[in-house]
Amino acid sequence: MILVSPRNPLNIGAVARAMANFGFARLAVAAPYAPNWREAKSAVGAPDLLLHAQEFATLADAVAGCTFVAGTGTLTHRKPDQRVVSLPDLEPLLQSELARGGRAALVFGPEKHGLTREDLSRCHVLVEIPTDPRQPSMNLGQAAAVCLYELARPDAQPVETTGEMGEAKAPSGSLDRLSGLIEETMTAAHYSPASMEAANRHDVRVLLRKLELSALDTRRVMGLFRRILWRLNRRGGPDEK
Amino acid sequence: MILVSPRNPLNIGAVARAMANFGFARLAVAAPYAPNWREAKSAVGAPDLLLHAQEFATLADAVAGCTFVAGTGTLTHRKPDQRVVSLPDLEPLLQSELARGGRAALVFGPEKHGLTREDLSRCHVLVEIPTDPRQPSMNLGQAAAVCLYELARPDAQPVETTGEMGEAKAPSGSLDRLSGLIEETMTAAHYSPASMEAANRHDVRVLLRKLELSALDTRRVMGLFRRILWRLNRRGGPDEK
Repeated sequence: MILVSPRNPLNIGAVARAMANFGFARLAVAAPYAPNWREAKSAVGAPDLLLHAQEFATLADAVAGCTFVAGTGTLTHRKPDQRVVSLPDLEPLLQSELARGGRAALVFGPEKHGLTREDLSRCHVLVEIPTDPRQPSMNLGQAAAVCLYELARPDAQPVETTGEMGEAKAPSGSLDRLSGLIEETMTAAHYSPASMEAANRHDVRVLLRKLELSALDTRRVMGLFRRILWRLNRRGGPDEK
Repeated sequence: MILVSPRNPLNIGAVARAMANFGFARLAVAAPYAPNWREAKSAVGAPDLLLHAQEFATLADAVAGCTFVAGTGTLTHRKPDQRVVSLPDLEPLLQSELARGGRAALVFGPEKHGLTREDLSRCHVLVEIPTDPRQPSMNLGQAAAVCLYELARPDAQPVETTGEMGEAKAPSGSLDRLSGLIEETMTAAHYSPASMEAANRHDVRVLLRKLELSALDTRRVMGLFRRILWRLNRRGGPDEK
């Protein structure tokens, strides 16, 4: 990753931190503002990759050894000369470049105005982060985080929309024992008239299966209902009206 | 999006800016530090969505009307009770929730220590940003930008609204009422020693969210527990040993 003339030391630190977060190690700076750059490097907790960043006088120097340079920016105010690539489509391009032995760089311009036309002329593609057209301009540290996240992003897994991953599901027999217990509790609590009992039994069975209770949770819920039932029955008898 | 006790006004501003960048409009804050929150709102160029953010005393209040709450955090130091979802897999879950008429929230904890166990007990899933294990902890503004980018990311899977719509899920406030009722029942049934009550309360909250109870089923289960509780209490008094 290459920063061109970054201004704000906090932004520089944020970029370096995002690189560490997503496992990127090589940072370079082109045409830095010397005091701001020094300040960023001397910040408490500055990552190693910032301390070891390479410095170049110009972007042209910084990318001299690169075979694929991706510039970043918003397109609101200019018609770019380069091919424009939406961020989600960048990673395959980078990968195929690296696969054939190339060297690639991602370039961010200064906070205020972004990469100049001169700088962009060193880029093979212009990467666009898909933002809301009403507020397209991103903070440098956030833009870097989003780009690096995308490049490191694992593919989405096929979705499992219900249930707990990894936990053993309760077998049907356990669910039947639990629903039996809940029915007994309903009866002991005079939850509903006898005429409703068959319908309730059915509803409880269906509900327990819909909930996809794990084996462990089934045992815990049974423990609770056993206790409730014991308490209800112990107190039954004498003062039953 | 909900921020819990955010500290740094710059971070708050960065979160609001990322929301504007990616087209999100509704921000809420829970348990804000009043002076820091005021400072963030009074910053030059603070987006409208920050000025109009809703304020709540607790996260429980903030998510009371939500049917799907996704907490964020790193997992290095704890074994979570919730289902963990990698960020690229979050969007389909959110979409299917919204498609069946639910309300979803994405929650970020305080910068220093993240969401507490208490806060996490209000979350249906815990979202993990896939970061380098050597440097997993992200800056708040950057983490928010990455999450919102992912949710707005254009080539994410199209939503499957075909087929049957799921049942409407119970909002967080209903689940809190139900877990309150179950706790009362546990106490009335002398289910466990007083020393276990806090742990049980936590477990019940987590379990109810894991079960993804529908609004209708939540009402039915509440009806049952109301009846049980009434019965337990009515019989209390005289023959209490």
